[in-house]
Amino acid sequence: MTNKVFFTPGPSELYPTVPQHMAAAMANKIGSISHRSQQFKDIYAHAVTGLRQLLQLPDNFEILLLSSANEIWERAIQNTVEQESFHLVNGSFSKRFYEISKELGRKATKHEVAFGEGFEVDQIEVPATAELVALVQNETSSGASLPVAAINALREKVGPEPLFFVDAVSSMPHPAFDYSKIDSVYFSVQKCFGLPAGLGVWILNERCIAKAEALQAKGLSVGSYHSIPSLLPKAKIFQTPETPNVLNIYLLGHVVEEMNKKGVDTLRQETEAKAKLIYDYIAGSENFEVAVQKESHRSATTIIANTKLPASEVIKRLAPFDMAVGSGYGSYKESQIRIANFPAHSLSQVQALVYKLKELVS
Amino acid sequence: MTNKVFFTPGPSELYPTVPQHMAAAMANKIGSISHRSQQFKDIYAHAVTGLRQLLQLPDNFEILLLSSANEIWERAIQNTVEQESFHLVNGSFSKRFYEISKELGRKATKHEVAFGEGFEVDQIEVPATAELVALVQNETSSGASLPVAAINALREKVGPEPLFFVDAVSSMPHPAFDYSKIDSVYFSVQKCFGLPAGLGVWILNERCIAKAEALQAKGLSVGSYHSIPSLLPKAKIFQTPETPNVLNIYLLGHVVEEMNKKGVDTLRQETEAKAKLIYDYIAGSENFEVAVQKESHRSATTIIANTKLPASEVIKRLAPFDMAVGSGYGSYKESQIRIANFPAHSLSQVQALVYKLKELVS
Repeated sequence: MTNKVFFTPGPSELYPTVPQHMAAAMANKIGSISHRSQQFKDIYAHAVTGLRQLLQLPDNFEILLLSSANEIWERAIQNTVEQESFHLVNGSFSKRFYEISKELGRKATKHEVAFGEGFEVDQIEVPATAELVALVQNETSSGASLPVAAINALREKVGPEPLFFVDAVSSMPHPAFDYSKIDSVYFSVQKCFGLPAGLGVWILNERCIAKAEALQAKGLSVGSYHSIPSLLPKAKIFQTPETPNVLNIYLLGHVVEEMNKKGVDTLRQETEAKAKLIYDYIAGSENFEVAVQKESHRSATTIIANTKLPASEVIKRLAPFDMAVGSGYGSYKESQIRIANFPAHSLSQVQALVYKLKELVS
Repeated sequence: MTNKVFFTPGPSELYPTVPQHMAAAMANKIGSISHRSQQFKDIYAHAVTGLRQLLQLPDNFEILLLSSANEIWERAIQNTVEQESFHLVNGSFSKRFYEISKELGRKATKHEVAFGEGFEVDQIEVPATAELVALVQNETSSGASLPVAAINALREKVGPEPLFFVDAVSSMPHPAFDYSKIDSVYFSVQKCFGLPAGLGVWILNERCIAKAEALQAKGLSVGSYHSIPSLLPKAKIFQTPETPNVLNIYLLGHVVEEMNKKGVDTLRQETEAKAKLIYDYIAGSENFEVAVQKESHRSATTIIANTKLPASEVIKRLAPFDMAVGSGYGSYKESQIRIANFPAHSLSQVQALVYKLKELVS
């Protein structure tokens, strides 16, 4: 039994009601039901209908359930890129998407800025031959964020042709996207949705679907059981080609229902208020400094600080008080800490973290 | 709250201790821990070390954790077949593996017998050009089983060259394989391991690994995050490329530990004793008849009966007594029932089912 509060950037603190929903799932044997039954279809429909409401999704977008954001990167390339993709890269995860395109035999080009920096739209030149533009709205490794206004401005600059794929793995549902400007957005449930890992949610419009069908019609392979043409007809009847992670879909539906009761506007305001608390503390600390220099490029949900004390020492000092923050990513392991600010983290938990960091670290 | 016992062929009844392990996982916040932490590595090691013991796996075999058996079909073709695979087909799942090979642009050939029939080794002609031979040890849709002795005889007949891939999705750990005769075997955790769905276990030897590396060295794409060359170095340090289904890996380790306490020999004997009870009942019933004609081809774990009463009527009669059997697969939905006989099903539960079927159906 642990009382630790996980401010780690994912897996992270579970949404507070998850243990009670899991207990109900066990009592009702949700792990045993057939994934072809009406009971499962109702569970699936509950999750995606709730998501449509929470994300204010237009009717021309579909929701597909996969296993991870890694998988979505692979399926996106397989299904919507014949020759060439273009990637905004400013950290480990945006770089990985770029690499996956190359591993799948495509030409991948990139506009890269330093780890921890954001992007300036006027400096981005998208090749006219790029079929997919990979945007990272929130780079989990570095805490750099791309404002929705910048995404919209890039669309204006680039024109309507290439598919815009937006990584909101660790920010959704915080960004209020203009869905007329993007074609796909995806996230993992173990970040802002406060769920156990094992599910990636892929949201995509009719243009992505048409592209996959066109590639398939040309005789190109778009994958097998998790191609868009295989996933979509199942999704429309609230099913999946394979036996899916039923328990997690059940939990997703319940957490989203509670988020809808609160309302997405309230969720977003709470996220911003908590982010301000954390950033204000970091800015005033003698040990920490905000890693992302430009204020408009700072993530509201994954907050990164440079630390003079080794990150392991900060983590060690917090441990007796049942609080965990994340170490830096990769080579920043000891020189940065990462603090998740997700809907599962209450205002009072964030206040307690800031208070304790002030006391223990300065 | 339900007291229903699921004799459905997967998802099925959970192993009896799963709810208590899940409660412990929630209390210890296993859903929040980092998948790069030592705590996670220990959970992963616990699962695979236990599996090695249970399955009596030789050292030249590795265990990889994926999302589903569907995914394993796809990864197997991508990683070990350059041109051509050969498939034994006698039901919906073995047929699907064959189709996946074609969807991935390979030449797939097959030896097909009727739904519900097994295979005769002397009638199987494996093309000399086949790189992978797909064997279905237990066809979940039809209840036909391929004895281990037949697998070994086919290896003798075919010679050492092609990779032998064995589908034991709904039978593992019942079959006692001779691992010197096969190269890979795979299963899903929601069948005989009594776990919630969302994890496929892929066991493969050094020949499969070498093949993937050779294809990659030739400049061919073997996939990305879930290619063998990506999965293997992570598996060796008890990790996965993506954030995995941590909770299910945790549960797998605990269930396998309990199976090891019982011992695989006892598990196999219990499975056979329960199978005999069910088959004897079906053979003596006026309503049912055993679907698989030849006794040596009958599955011990997924038992299929032709039914005169529509399957839905059988299911309806059992429902008030908190018992669920599966309907037939696909076009056999009403003309067959499927009864799972997994380690999670106790002898007394099987006896109660047989008793109730006798009373309600004849």
